[in-house]
Amino acid sequence: MTSTPAQSFEITTGTLPASRKIQVKGSDRLKGVNVAMREITLEPTAKEPSVPVYDTSGIYTDDTAQVDIHTGLPKLRAEWIADRGDVEPYDGRSIRPEDNGYKAHQKIEVEEFPNVPQNPLRAKGDAVTQMAYAKRGIITPEMEYIAIRENANLQAYLDAWETGSWQREDNQHPANGFGARLPKEITPEFVRDEVARGRAIIPANINHPESEPMIIGRNFKVKINANIGNSAVTSSIAEEVDKMVWATRWGADTIMDLSTGKNIHATREWILRNAPVPVGTVPIYQALEKVGGVAEDLTWVIFRDTLIEQAEQGVDYFTIHAGVRLPFIPLTEKRVTGIVSRGGSIHAKWCMAHHKDNFAYEHFDEIAEICRAYDVSFSLGDGLRPGSIADANDAAQFAELKTLGELTHKAWEKDCQVMIEGPGHVPMHLIEENMKKQLEACDEAPFYTLGPLTTDIAPGYDHITSGIGAAMIGWYGCAMLCYVTPKEHLGLPDRNDVKEGVITYRIAAHAADLAKGHPAAQIRDNALSRARFEFRWRDQFNLALDPERAMEYHDQTLPAEGAKVAHFCSMCGPKFCSMKISQEVREFASMKNTPEMIEANQAEAGMQEMAEKFTEEGAEIYKKVG
Amino acid sequence: MTSTPAQSFEITTGTLPASRKIQVKGSDRLKGVNVAMREITLEPTAKEPSVPVYDTSGIYTDDTAQVDIHTGLPKLRAEWIADRGDVEPYDGRSIRPEDNGYKAHQKIEVEEFPNVPQNPLRAKGDAVTQMAYAKRGIITPEMEYIAIRENANLQAYLDAWETGSWQREDNQHPANGFGARLPKEITPEFVRDEVARGRAIIPANINHPESEPMIIGRNFKVKINANIGNSAVTSSIAEEVDKMVWATRWGADTIMDLSTGKNIHATREWILRNAPVPVGTVPIYQALEKVGGVAEDLTWVIFRDTLIEQAEQGVDYFTIHAGVRLPFIPLTEKRVTGIVSRGGSIHAKWCMAHHKDNFAYEHFDEIAEICRAYDVSFSLGDGLRPGSIADANDAAQFAELKTLGELTHKAWEKDCQVMIEGPGHVPMHLIEENMKKQLEACDEAPFYTLGPLTTDIAPGYDHITSGIGAAMIGWYGCAMLCYVTPKEHLGLPDRNDVKEGVITYRIAAHAADLAKGHPAAQIRDNALSRARFEFRWRDQFNLALDPERAMEYHDQTLPAEGAKVAHFCSMCGPKFCSMKISQEVREFASMKNTPEMIEANQAEAGMQEMAEKFTEEGAEIYKKVG
Repeated sequence: MTSTPAQSFEITTGTLPASRKIQVKGSDRLKGVNVAMREITLEPTAKEPSVPVYDTSGIYTDDTAQVDIHTGLPKLRAEWIADRGDVEPYDGRSIRPEDNGYKAHQKIEVEEFPNVPQNPLRAKGDAVTQMAYAKRGIITPEMEYIAIRENANLQAYLDAWETGSWQREDNQHPANGFGARLPKEITPEFVRDEVARGRAIIPANINHPESEPMIIGRNFKVKINANIGNSAVTSSIAEEVDKMVWATRWGADTIMDLSTGKNIHATREWILRNAPVPVGTVPIYQALEKVGGVAEDLTWVIFRDTLIEQAEQGVDYFTIHAGVRLPFIPLTEKRVTGIVSRGGSIHAKWCMAHHKDNFAYEHFDEIAEICRAYDVSFSLGDGLRPGSIADANDAAQFAELKTLGELTHKAWEKDCQVMIEGPGHVPMHLIEENMKKQLEACDEAPFYTLGPLTTDIAPGYDHITSGIGAAMIGWYGCAMLCYVTPKEHLGLPDRNDVKEGVITYRIAAHAADLAKGHPAAQIRDNALSRARFEFRWRDQFNLALDPERAMEYHDQTLPAEGAKVAHFCSMCGPKFCSMKISQEVREFASMKNTPEMIEANQAEAGMQEMAEKFTEEGAEIYKKVG
Repeated sequence: MTSTPAQSFEITTGTLPASRKIQVKGSDRLKGVNVAMREITLEPTAKEPSVPVYDTSGIYTDDTAQVDIHTGLPKLRAEWIADRGDVEPYDGRSIRPEDNGYKAHQKIEVEEFPNVPQNPLRAKGDAVTQMAYAKRGIITPEMEYIAIRENANLQAYLDAWETGSWQREDNQHPANGFGARLPKEITPEFVRDEVARGRAIIPANINHPESEPMIIGRNFKVKINANIGNSAVTSSIAEEVDKMVWATRWGADTIMDLSTGKNIHATREWILRNAPVPVGTVPIYQALEKVGGVAEDLTWVIFRDTLIEQAEQGVDYFTIHAGVRLPFIPLTEKRVTGIVSRGGSIHAKWCMAHHKDNFAYEHFDEIAEICRAYDVSFSLGDGLRPGSIADANDAAQFAELKTLGELTHKAWEKDCQVMIEGPGHVPMHLIEENMKKQLEACDEAPFYTLGPLTTDIAPGYDHITSGIGAAMIGWYGCAMLCYVTPKEHLGLPDRNDVKEGVITYRIAAHAADLAKGHPAAQIRDNALSRARFEFRWRDQFNLALDPERAMEYHDQTLPAEGAKVAHFCSMCGPKFCSMKISQEVREFASMKNTPEMIEANQAEAGMQEMAEKFTEEGAEIYKKVG
């Protein structure tokens, strides 16, 4: 792991331990673009194939790649987009000082991205969304890329076992997916079908060709999102770019840039041009900056202009709080924590000041027109989500959800892709109701929740209070989990908090994949558990979600190099390790696991004899495994 | 928080922020012993009563108490035990060098506890267990103490609201307890009944009168256990005493001393004499030390002697792996991780070497005779628990569980209290089956699980992988959750790991209490959420499970003293905070929440008028709360 200084930028690059990028080829449809994955190589003593894992980190973990933050990432999808022949470049909207929070004649005070693309793309006429193609029966390169990516080289891994000397590794518990149906193998046609049905989305703005296609849906791997962004109080562009690279390094499937304050446009440009994952935003945040933070001064025109500005830049999904309708606002009055969504409260304030219904609701069709022209996915915001255990599953929340369901169908009519945002704070026994109601109200459009936090009493540990709820709702069918960091409710997350949040949510998503029965999920658990059982310490570290921490914690007690090949650990010491004893047991059981043994067990006569035999053979036997 | 140096001992004492010990009086039955709780005082602006919370920390957080590690804690229960008239002191077993892992004539190398009680107590004849009394219809002082403790002063808190100017605070979601039935108020009779039925246990060795009575059962607050103990590789007695005090400070309901290596007896003495909570052990660990670590040299006589040694010292519950039977061992052969329980593998090795069935199974009645003479509770160990996702819910595990059910009834016949240990590593969708099978096989004896971990792929974060499973199984009915620290699988937990593990498990247990409907559970969530909504930062910190971390995280971004009374936080800054906007919304909604408003909403004509009125009244209104 090294740091690449690019002027003021410091980002973390380099492969993870014992890992390398592999490039899986697709059909001619992909025009030579390969699907990048990570492969973790095990110790030779393991006699096991390398373990392929889904990889969100882009070229930053590819030692053969050139990384230059000032140039931006290669435009992976540019040719695919152009080849469809349905988009055209045009003179985009001019960037104005207000876009970055300055007055009309002020100059921007930060370094701007030097290679801003000229002339954004826009649909010539018909919708250019993945849903539009899917409905027409077209399998796009994006869909095929995703199919290969979701399979994560499972078949090649299983085949490698068959040619090896060991038993084929494919044991996995039968799943219980609450109605989710994950096929044994994801095909491009399956991807197309799920997108056409609205059950999955591929956030892929035609102006963000740098991102590696990914899918959000109940019948795929559970995804996680990491929020980053400047705030009015603290942080810089370089820090946010670093957080973006850092979050994807540890497994963030998408990033939301929630910047507020100044330089929003400039920050987003740096992030988009360097993001290997889809980028979402909450456009109302920037719109609010443009009117000096006074919610009641917002207008549809300013909001619309902001949507176009961001669509031209390449934002892949917009949080739109169109469900915060005027009549629902009084429903929040008796709440313990009122409206806690920032976007929701901005819209609510506007509604009250003007005593008009939400302009995002009133102009929803026009928003959809923008989205279909750039393929920006909707993320219908839950502006009335509960902000405390007390407020969970109340009338305000479910009134909004019902509206989001109506809007989903409106968006689908225009071939726009849609996901639905969800809570928030929910006690465990009320989580399933959220998932059920969402599937019903929104006709199975993917759900995207923030946590939920299962208790309010642990600020400082809300990655954990929410990780519990996230794992559960992921199991119940939630397609993407928005991370919560340990700083939630307290402060702005730094680099360490981002990592802690991402790893916690990778745990939640993976636990959900196991329970839902993602066909490749248990592979990694099994490989790590075998490594653990066989005292292959390095393999155990390398297969971990966070190899660095695993090794660091091990080394705190047993730092010596020899301890990493030792057949014991610091909990029990060399003599009494249960894993060690247990291997002896296995050899014995294996040797004696015959009908005779079980019979002998009942026959008092045989016992003494067998006992003596074991002692003769060396009761302290410890044969090396493998 | 200060440190009290007592020769080599450094422990953390002093109240938590804004907290004080309160002493709740019981009936004459308690003979003047009060039930200690913690009360968190809120800022005067809150206009809310102080929040009472269940408190496991003993006198260490009582600023009025004298703490001296060399003297030990006051013997809270001594009079109660003596008054029952059914125990007698006797010349206990002499302590031998082997008890501390030394050879016959070696001298112990560590400082021994200077005030070892003379002449342990033992039953004169009949069982002296809480279950025996309960079955006879006797409400013991322990039972009344527990009833008061479990209610955590809820009624007094609610009454304080009624005399105050605010609305009475008792809103809580209806629960879903999977068959658990928590009454609105815990009465001493309810405690007795649950203990008599075997559905709850009160671990309370007559030789550990220092501990504050607590209960483990499905119809009570979910409890957590913290493991501590020397290992053969590292750590010292002082460190372990510190960890015990530290773990109970943050909320550990019981402690298990899992020491191995040397000085086991001496370590345990220091811990027992200073532990305000029940202490459990795995006696086979010490027995193994007595035979130099060679499992096949173990004998029933050595094991029995160790049980008596520990019962005389005051151990409150024994993990007994009597379910690891010879015929079950071959069932583990195909497992990915074999037998991972240390106790289980020791017994398995012995069984194979002698080709005899487990001596703890064969001599179970004799063990029960010991337990009933001191009131040591059984914690029937799951020696065949799964050590990986792959091995969850397999034949070996459930064969053992069935045996534990048989043993439960045997123990109950002798009036011994019993709980059942459970896994381990289990994917989310297989957790409920564990709970159901346990309730069925063991006739509702309390379940006590280690996690379970919901995935194997995150060493370094196993407090989280297991916290997810712990919260879920707690909700399903598990009575006590054994913590897992971030060092699990990697190294020996230090002080920070102990705290991280305890807080994580307090979160899991509390999330379960909320879902199961413990009547006092949501009080704290509601109080903290109101504090959050009203920008009472200090109240938010003080009500948190870890006030120190909450404040520290807040101060990393906004260290200024003024920020703690600021009506904004660092995420959004002073202008755009959703909480702030949301309060304005509330005031507006409250003002306008009339049928007229909803009607007006439909009547286009009325809208403009109301909007103007709001603007007239000051669209930027921000009235101070309270």
